[in-house]
Amino acid sequence: MPEFFEVLPPDDARSLWLAQVTHRAPLESISTLNALGRVLGQTITSPEALPAFKRSTVDGYAVRAADTFGASDSLPAYLRLVGEVPMGQAAIVDVQTGEAVLIHTGGMIPPDADAVVMVEHTQPFSAGEIEILKPVAPGENVLQVGEDVAPGAKILPAGHRLQPHDIGALLALGLAEQIPVVSKPRVGLFSTGDELVEPGTKILNPGQIRDINSGTISALCAQAGGEPEILGIVRDDPDELYRGLSTAFPDADMLVVTAGSSVSVRDMTAETINRLGAPGVLVHGVAARPGKPTILAVIDGKPVIGLPGNPVSALVMFILFGIPAIVHLMGTSVPLQMRTQARLVMNVPSAAGREDYVPVRLFDRDGETWAEPVFGKSNLIFTLVGTDGLLKVPLNVTGLREGAWGEVILYG
Amino acid sequence: MPEFFEVLPPDDARSLWLAQVTHRAPLESISTLNALGRVLGQTITSPEALPAFKRSTVDGYAVRAADTFGASDSLPAYLRLVGEVPMGQAAIVDVQTGEAVLIHTGGMIPPDADAVVMVEHTQPFSAGEIEILKPVAPGENVLQVGEDVAPGAKILPAGHRLQPHDIGALLALGLAEQIPVVSKPRVGLFSTGDELVEPGTKILNPGQIRDINSGTISALCAQAGGEPEILGIVRDDPDELYRGLSTAFPDADMLVVTAGSSVSVRDMTAETINRLGAPGVLVHGVAARPGKPTILAVIDGKPVIGLPGNPVSALVMFILFGIPAIVHLMGTSVPLQMRTQARLVMNVPSAAGREDYVPVRLFDRDGETWAEPVFGKSNLIFTLVGTDGLLKVPLNVTGLREGAWGEVILYG
Repeated sequence: MPEFFEVLPPDDARSLWLAQVTHRAPLESISTLNALGRVLGQTITSPEALPAFKRSTVDGYAVRAADTFGASDSLPAYLRLVGEVPMGQAAIVDVQTGEAVLIHTGGMIPPDADAVVMVEHTQPFSAGEIEILKPVAPGENVLQVGEDVAPGAKILPAGHRLQPHDIGALLALGLAEQIPVVSKPRVGLFSTGDELVEPGTKILNPGQIRDINSGTISALCAQAGGEPEILGIVRDDPDELYRGLSTAFPDADMLVVTAGSSVSVRDMTAETINRLGAPGVLVHGVAARPGKPTILAVIDGKPVIGLPGNPVSALVMFILFGIPAIVHLMGTSVPLQMRTQARLVMNVPSAAGREDYVPVRLFDRDGETWAEPVFGKSNLIFTLVGTDGLLKVPLNVTGLREGAWGEVILYG
Repeated sequence: MPEFFEVLPPDDARSLWLAQVTHRAPLESISTLNALGRVLGQTITSPEALPAFKRSTVDGYAVRAADTFGASDSLPAYLRLVGEVPMGQAAIVDVQTGEAVLIHTGGMIPPDADAVVMVEHTQPFSAGEIEILKPVAPGENVLQVGEDVAPGAKILPAGHRLQPHDIGALLALGLAEQIPVVSKPRVGLFSTGDELVEPGTKILNPGQIRDINSGTISALCAQAGGEPEILGIVRDDPDELYRGLSTAFPDADMLVVTAGSSVSVRDMTAETINRLGAPGVLVHGVAARPGKPTILAVIDGKPVIGLPGNPVSALVMFILFGIPAIVHLMGTSVPLQMRTQARLVMNVPSAAGREDYVPVRLFDRDGETWAEPVFGKSNLIFTLVGTDGLLKVPLNVTGLREGAWGEVILYG
């Protein structure tokens, strides 16, 4: 049971911990229209060429380019109009030397044509004839077969998170069903504490508070691509917690225990996690504020987290550790838009040797993003309401100055 | 039928159009755990005080602060230990002068105590007595009743999009059900074109292509908080399109027609939208590339959009107009993280008098976000694959220089 008693910087703690997380969420097949935001489990290759036929990119006339060479306003080329390519059908008319065929954007180029003259560069001459006022080069205004994608090309790599245009790209190739994606990691959530009651409880007895961390953490979890399951409130009793964790463990990809904040309860959480299996608790405490008393464990290759009970600490620590773990279980990387840069409206003091996370409200000023810190006790969930993210004050600085740029982790 | 024949800059077109969109998505009530990302339909006020009782913020001893004044390592104060506050229960023991009660983080402060001494600043003296090594001020380490939220306080405004911590904040007050939110705007999507077939079609006939815009637009729509409904492919026939639109109109909050790219099909779309009602088409063409031939209409206060058929244009125009319309129908504002700033790795030429939108790949270099443009024909959906967003080249510049900062609209 290799336990690290020193308090580690968050980045070190995360690396050390995730290096031992060998479990991965299993693959499943879903339809493309349901796959937005999901992570590909396998690399996708193109089954066909796109486009599958030569297409016009403009409204105009399909021609042989050589027939237009030297054409100009003052000396047009005259071509015989021999038909029209209907949309969605093969171009049945052919284009011989001296001939042109009316074609619409997206229409199929007749086999013997090699370019399209835009309608703006033509004018009708007689019933069966048009004037070409500008020459076209071979291939001009034509999409070639496979110009977008060649058959067999690797189009999307395993681990890619599907964006709206990826949905379109898959559909363009006829890949509408059976897309191999990583299943959403199932994250079992427990809250411990004799003082906790279900959040739906209307009337509290003295000393009771509602369990709010299950709700906040399940929202963060869902937003990151996980499948949260709220498994309820457990009393401050090691055997009850052990029964809950060991029952949930086989079907979960990750477990999260939000513990009360008292020392005895935190110790109980760590000891109970260690009873589940090996290697057990790897990190007990991180150099961050809020959230120092965080527990990071691995059981049979699966991540298990013990979060501090106070709501701001629990949120910050789940963002620092829970979301990267979900991402790791899916075999992908954190989306870029989770972080942004912003300038500070005031000095933000800190202490060297730990990372501080300060809730901030973001706003635009003269095209730059500015951050206004909102200070509050980490017990107060309403400190976060109205803020947009967390300003990171790095490990080895004693604060950030007014006007300086800082990194802000966004909530969503 | 006030139609604007000049091609308007995108911002002007959007303002002119949305000013006439008076329809709003209706309200509904849902449970808090399902409300992540949803928009509040009414301002929420607090039904109670949070916390509802005085709580300790540390592990230690509840005392009368006056009993600790002057205490130090060399001259401790001695207090009689008269009990412990159990978690989740009322503090039944009282604290008289000269007495202390053991209390845990989150525990209820006994009525006659007014501060808590951290356990680190005490030491046991005898079985029934402790030494206090440091004084506390009245109120120290105590959360007062209502310190987080006072009863009746406005905690979240109408129009607010619920974030993970807002879910926790609502639950903290017992607001677990019947949260008034704006229903997801129902967006009916049509694609027109004789060349289009369903995306699930495996074998294409010559001249046919799969309808991919319905998939891309429905993904963007869902991501923005709308409820997309793919209503299928319509032939290039005004009566068929009219029947489709007029049938879908009553149950939809917004309609989107992705038209073929040829001039005749675009004109058919505009004319058919005008048959639906008043005021009809307000904008026919915007000063942007790609996407110029975009149609913006209002029918009985509801927005109707005609998008160009080529997939990149359709995506760009839905981001510029469709997403703001969904946001408008919900009575909220665009989330901040939809846009970011990035530096350009190369010169990006443009033409004054129109906005250009160039797909870019984003990456980090020395802590700054950089954008690498990916140029491609706007017909090619795979131009977008591997890109993270769209660089905006503003209306009245002829390009952006290498190293300059530009605005990037993210896809998700």
